[in-house]
Amino acid sequence: MGHNVDLSNYQIRTDLAIETISDKTIEGVISQKSVENGITITNIDVNEVGSKNIGKKKGSYVTIEFDDVTDFENEKKVEKIFSRELKKMLNKLKIKDDSSCLVIGLGNSKSTPDSLGPLTINNLIVTNHLFELNQVDDGFRKVAVLIPGVMGQTGLETSEVIASIVNQFKPDFLIAIDALASQSVERVNKTIQMTDTGIHPGSGVGNSRKEISYETLQIPCIAIGVPTVVDAVTIVADTINYMHKHYTYSKLNIDNPMNKLLTSNPNYLKKKFTLNQQDKETLLGIVGTLSDIEIKQLLFEVLTPIGFNLMVTPKEVDFLIDKLSFLIGNGINHTLHKKI
Amino acid sequence: MGHNVDLSNYQIRTDLAIETISDKTIEGVISQKSVENGITITNIDVNEVGSKNIGKKKGSYVTIEFDDVTDFENEKKVEKIFSRELKKMLNKLKIKDDSSCLVIGLGNSKSTPDSLGPLTINNLIVTNHLFELNQVDDGFRKVAVLIPGVMGQTGLETSEVIASIVNQFKPDFLIAIDALASQSVERVNKTIQMTDTGIHPGSGVGNSRKEISYETLQIPCIAIGVPTVVDAVTIVADTINYMHKHYTYSKLNIDNPMNKLLTSNPNYLKKKFTLNQQDKETLLGIVGTLSDIEIKQLLFEVLTPIGFNLMVTPKEVDFLIDKLSFLIGNGINHTLHKKI
Amino acid sequence: MGHNVDLSNYQIRTDLAIETISDKTIEGVISQKSVENGITITNIDVNEVGSKNIGKKKGSYVTIEFDDVTDFENEKKVEKIFSRELKKMLNKLKIKDDSSCLVIGLGNSKSTPDSLGPLTINNLIVTNHLFELNQVDDGFRKVAVLIPGVMGQTGLETSEVIASIVNQFKPDFLIAIDALASQSVERVNKTIQMTDTGIHPGSGVGNSRKEISYETLQIPCIAIGVPTVVDAVTIVADTINYMHKHYTYSKLNIDNPMNKLLTSNPNYLKKKFTLNQQDKETLLGIVGTLSDIEIKQLLFEVLTPIGFNLMVTPKEVDFLIDKLSFLIGNGINHTLHKKI
Amino acid sequence: MGHNVDLSNYQIRTDLAIETISDKTIEGVISQKSVENGITITNIDVNEVGSKNIGKKKGSYVTIEFDDVTDFENEKKVEKIFSRELKKMLNKLKIKDDSSCLVIGLGNSKSTPDSLGPLTINNLIVTNHLFELNQVDDGFRKVAVLIPGVMGQTGLETSEVIASIVNQFKPDFLIAIDALASQSVERVNKTIQMTDTGIHPGSGVGNSRKEISYETLQIPCIAIGVPTVVDAVTIVADTINYMHKHYTYSKLNIDNPMNKLLTSNPNYLKKKFTLNQQDKETLLGIVGTLSDIEIKQLLFEVLTPIGFNLMVTPKEVDFLIDKLSFLIGNGINHTLHKKI
Repeated sequence: MGHNVDLSNYQIRTDLAIETISDKTIEGVISQKSVENGITITNIDVNEVGSKNIGKKKGSYVTIEFDDVTDFENEKKVEKIFSRELKKMLNKLKIKDDSSCLVIGLGNSKSTPDSLGPLTINNLIVTNHLFELNQVDDGFRKVAVLIPGVMGQTGLETSEVIASIVNQFKPDFLIAIDALASQSVERVNKTIQMTDTGIHPGSGVGNSRKEISYETLQIPCIAIGVPTVVDAVTIVADTINYMHKHYTYSKLNIDNPMNKLLTSNPNYLKKKFTLNQQDKETLLGIVGTLSDIEIKQLLFEVLTPIGFNLMVTPKEVDFLIDKLSFLIGNGINHTLHKKI
Repeated sequence: MGHNVDLSNYQIRTDLAIETISDKTIEGVISQKSVENGITITNIDVNEVGSKNIGKKKGSYVTIEFDDVTDFENEKKVEKIFSRELKKMLNKLKIKDDSSCLVIGLGNSKSTPDSLGPLTINNLIVTNHLFELNQVDDGFRKVAVLIPGVMGQTGLETSEVIASIVNQFKPDFLIAIDALASQSVERVNKTIQMTDTGIHPGSGVGNSRKEISYETLQIPCIAIGVPTVVDAVTIVADTINYMHKHYTYSKLNIDNPMNKLLTSNPNYLKKKFTLNQQDKETLLGIVGTLSDIEIKQLLFEVLTPIGFNLMVTPKEVDFLIDKLSFLIGNGINHTLHKKI
Repeated sequence: MGHNVDLSNYQIRTDLAIETISDKTIEGVISQKSVENGITITNIDVNEVGSKNIGKKKGSYVTIEFDDVTDFENEKKVEKIFSRELKKMLNKLKIKDDSSCLVIGLGNSKSTPDSLGPLTINNLIVTNHLFELNQVDDGFRKVAVLIPGVMGQTGLETSEVIASIVNQFKPDFLIAIDALASQSVERVNKTIQMTDTGIHPGSGVGNSRKEISYETLQIPCIAIGVPTVVDAVTIVADTINYMHKHYTYSKLNIDNPMNKLLTSNPNYLKKKFTLNQQDKETLLGIVGTLSDIEIKQLLFEVLTPIGFNLMVTPKEVDFLIDKLSFLIGNGINHTLHKKI
Repeated sequence: MGHNVDLSNYQIRTDLAIETISDKTIEGVISQKSVENGITITNIDVNEVGSKNIGKKKGSYVTIEFDDVTDFENEKKVEKIFSRELKKMLNKLKIKDDSSCLVIGLGNSKSTPDSLGPLTINNLIVTNHLFELNQVDDGFRKVAVLIPGVMGQTGLETSEVIASIVNQFKPDFLIAIDALASQSVERVNKTIQMTDTGIHPGSGVGNSRKEISYETLQIPCIAIGVPTVVDAVTIVADTINYMHKHYTYSKLNIDNPMNKLLTSNPNYLKKKFTLNQQDKETLLGIVGTLSDIEIKQLLFEVLTPIGFNLMVTPKEVDFLIDKLSFLIGNGINHTLHKKI
């Protein structure tokens, strides 16, 4: 492509395990998908071999994908599934009903797309301090919370703040909530991932936070995340894929009298048809000859030197973060406290 | 491209006059550009002939483009230029020092990218009510403000709310502040436009607000706007252009020993070289044969049926809107009140 | 009391009709009290004769008094009674199910004790704009809302802002929500008043807002208010009364062996016993010889020249205003829209 | 006074050392007062003997009293004095220019009168994380911040949260900012106290926080506080004192022709005259025979069983806390960083 092309510059980094697997079988990775009420639940179990193959840590990853969380009915359905899957993860980790929990809201409360963690904390039922006073009914467990802030605000390494609080208060397990970056436009504000592998440096938006995990803290660490931002590279790469699909679909249907009657264009993503490489090259020239990862690397090389590889978030981010933090907060309350 | 391609579906709508002109001379449009301290000021005067040619209303448009408003020094420079240009526009409209002003903050205070108007209002010095009490020093004029909300919140047509307030209080002139949509990634949160043509239905983000202008209200109406959102179509179309430039630049410099010594890629947008159509077609196939507007129309057709033509805003929107509303508020205070 | 005592300086001004009546019969004033689940509902009807006797406008006043709105169960009970009483008032005013309503949130959204109106508006279901689009189910009426701000923020006389909006949009009736001042510590954040007489200049906190009423706007105007502040004069005057009661009660019970067994002091306000003037004078000297109104006038004279007649609000005001605006918002939604 | 009067029930607890001393000399307490530009600065040094005498911990207490912090000019004057006095305290504690500092914002960010600490933190210049990157100019020291929340929100004992962070990050000294309770209406939002004795359990609003001090953390702990609330007992007790002064002053001046010409009542607190006990008893009966502390104990006994010993804050609390947190934040920045 040019003189100083270094295709390895762009690291595809994603917090979402689901973005690292495909339909093909990968050794050491067992994935299982189910659909309920239009909500897709994917369980991915990664062992040590699989860990090397997909570059994600050994452990369980549960991904819940949904359409519209601003719809009240749908929100309730997602909340129920989320709470149930979180309960399953607690059981899998052999966490008892009376184990104490510290819930951590990561991120910057002053930045809307990064405020999912702190906002979720505000929706939690906190009981830890009431136990000493014997003011707690049966069916509640000890729950404490922490909003550690981000290093740019506090001057303190967030993972060290958490470690010191864990050492002091010795909760039995930890749940951390954070906003993530997505490698796909489709998933922004429409996916919840939970994992028992904790939170890892180098993944996500690029903040080099130190690891928050069983290995570092010696207690189970469940991470719950929602992708709330996406970069321009991803938007363009996704669109190039859609252009290919749209082109092939249009070519196949150019004489379909059915389609001619439609008043609006059909959602070609929901149709079944075979893509071929030749179409892509005809439509997109040299760009059409590149693999998905090569396209992202090229876009990264095009956008970075001119400062336009923006991290962006949908215009409606305030309302979406509000709904999502409410949903996750309620879901956690239901899982942690039997009584609710 | 396919069976039901209607290239006229996508209307290139922009609130920014600067996005409708190019380097070529257009009849009835006089534009003048100057650069101060790295800040570009473009004055565009459109007469009736020009209005037809570029699809923008007859009147004056001043655009101030800048790099980084989070830098304190730069912010002060932009504020000074903004205030001076606003003063010039008031003079041009023959608005006197003691003419009373109503400043309107349009947009939704609950949605960060749409809250520029309401937030700016909070930074204004309001004096109207003090005049009756003779509590105002010389050098201040009568200023009142209004945050009318958006129709989705209030149930009321915003332009009618404004008209009724204007009829009641009879200010001598009006300033309206609003967040806009951009047709270019480069301008998001980096451009202030002011115009004496008011605010018009059909332009901008797609809210069908009725016109707020001299024609409807019988007083001078100055509109001040900052583009805070951009759609996915624009991001991809811009990137396709950048790919073309990057490709040509790389080809031209493939054997440049100078460039081989660079540790990071150069900003090719700042280099001078000639683009040719053949490169674009080689790089991008059929897509490379399309004009800029055809590419946008194609992208609109690709993204709309699948629901991915998102309006997005940069991740840092909270901090940027905060700075911009502070800058515009201060600038208006300095222009409206001689004493400050 | 002194050289320049002007006992008429202190005007006992209250927004609450209930504070202007007593247990005695007043000509032209019919009041009726009932208690449900510990919540007291007082209906006061004032005719023209009564209006002169108590200094409140002719019309209906409904007062709901309750204990603790932070208790979820109790909050639901108060909300239900509030909604029912509001429904009754609409019926009494012959407002039809399809009459359109404008709800106005008075007060300053930036001042917690004054933000009841704006916060309540945020909890309302707004439908006015949807009717034109035929997007509304049966069982909803046209509801629009307005947050006019306060004159100190906007520079505009609030009553004129409202009048101009009413003239423009011609709603069939109006509901205005506002934070009030109380003449009694007991009622702060524990009372909701609704009245069909609108909102009047000179009453309340001392903002000389112009009247918002049927007389000025030619449509029914229902005012809903909660006292959220009280002045120091009231706190001290109330306490002087309590000292009298406490003294008499203690004297009567000094040898009551029952009381000696109590671990905490009894709530003497809930006991029945007769007060006598002599006790008051013994306890409080000259101050004990003054009537309630004379005590307030004295306190006003003592505190005003030294700047200590503060308007105050309970420390917990943020949480209380939050709960109350939620309660009133929900109650209005249930009353205005049959479907909910 | 009655059957079960226990005058020891009411503990006069105050965070302000200035409220524990009087004009008389107290052994072991050296106090020094100066006035600049209408701002009063009181330095109190307490040794071990003095500590027993006034019930405050051994150490230095500096109190700054001012009138109106909403006046811009005055705010700047107070800020300058505050910053200078804080600098003096650092010098006295032999804290070096390059000693690292942890600033803690105590209190509840969701409760306006309790949010002084968290809001001040938002105005601080945080540098700790930049030192590792060598991104800091000379003239800045290492500053980190923490907003630990309150136990009711987090479930965690705040002093233990702080201890664990101090152990982890080992700052050289600590500054804690908190909202306090006052024993005097005059001081609410009009006083800043700083002390090197830290923050102590049992003092203040009644939250039984554990001590944050040199004794517990082994580093110098400076506490900065502003009284933002006052209880009803204090308001009434203060007013009873004012009634006494007002009565005596009025009696003395009943025939003063000068006063008769005044259009408003004079501020009798600023006049010099002698009070006598007989006036107090004539005016206030039995209540007039009680000492200040006995009056407070009586009021506590009157108000507590009926639930009316409210903690209150002035109606304007939002604006005042905003100004005060800005002032203290700026003052700390100037003291901690030489460069600013």
